[in-house]
Amino acid sequence: MPKIVDHERRRAEIAETTWRIIARRGLDGATLREVAADAGYANGAIKPYFPSKASLMEATFRHVFGRTNARIAEATAGLDGFAALRAFSLEVLPLDADRLDEARVVVAFWQQALHHPAQAEVNDSAMRQWRERIRGWLQEARRRGLAADRPPLEPAAETVLTYLLGAQIAAVLHPDFNSPEQLISQLDAQLELLRG
Amino acid sequence: MPKIVDHERRRAEIAETTWRIIARRGLDGATLREVAADAGYANGAIKPYFPSKASLMEATFRHVFGRTNARIAEATAGLDGFAALRAFSLEVLPLDADRLDEARVVVAFWQQALHHPAQAEVNDSAMRQWRERIRGWLQEARRRGLAADRPPLEPAAETVLTYLLGAQIAAVLHPDFNSPEQLISQLDAQLELLRG
Repeated sequence: MPKIVDHERRRAEIAETTWRIIARRGLDGATLREVAADAGYANGAIKPYFPSKASLMEATFRHVFGRTNARIAEATAGLDGFAALRAFSLEVLPLDADRLDEARVVVAFWQQALHHPAQAEVNDSAMRQWRERIRGWLQEARRRGLAADRPPLEPAAETVLTYLLGAQIAAVLHPDFNSPEQLISQLDAQLELLRG
Repeated sequence: MPKIVDHERRRAEIAETTWRIIARRGLDGATLREVAADAGYANGAIKPYFPSKASLMEATFRHVFGRTNARIAEATAGLDGFAALRAFSLEVLPLDADRLDEARVVVAFWQQALHHPAQAEVNDSAMRQWRERIRGWLQEARRRGLAADRPPLEPAAETVLTYLLGAQIAAVLHPDFNSPEQLISQLDAQLELLRG
């Protein structure tokens, strides 16, 4: 069914264009007209793929999470415990230009998710998955005696996730204190503390 | 000079109205027209106080930081080390309805700051102040032998600040895992880890 394949490929291309525009110019800069122009489509040619700006935003955020999750799957393959947690965190931290652009889009997305339940749901389901994995890795490290048993698992794991969310902001708004090297030392400081 | 006093009071009233509107309806909902209507001003009566939406946003964000900093000053008076760090963090964490509204505004603000240097500067100067204080309190706790000397001060302090930024997002977007009680256990988990 080549038509469906084509439709899906086009949707992905449009989402790819959109997140780059949001990263550069913010949400307000990402009008359907701008996206069409940047993607090389005629004005109005986005509508058959994304009938509303909300549906375009949702697809764009799914696209960005998908990029990050693909990197995570590759980086954590075959790892467990602290090694997996560190590899995962290194993919979530904004350590290069592409991931700083992802962070800029994520910040825009949070603002949208606060007022659009469908987008909040995209974010929720991504975060539920990350939270489970962080807990699982930390639990495994404790089970193997590689991490202290205190503090309780749930708040300890949640602070790692919350730190990673905060790092998206910190890296794009306070780069002087959150260079790639500094972010990696912060991550290692936390892992050192969790090891006990 | 009663006129100047009046002008300043009006500006503060308008900023107070604006942050409540942003918290409820997002940045897009905070048009000059909506703000005027909510503040009980004639349409167009905001302009003499705030000639542009950008100047209104900047004043609003300063107003929100001012609220938080006033609470911090009160809560940390006479404290040092971990006691000060905990009292400070409890004022920054979104632990009640008002502070959840502040968090919603801060998320909107970050999105603005990414693309408006003047607003980035408001945020930068607030965060520099917080960063210095967190470092100072942690250093004092270490000096008194109340905290382990590892990991290095700078990344240890920065992760606390970054966690507090992330908590603004986590509390408004993932309240099921970030209730006031859960946020407090997360904070205490971090302080326990830093004590060593």
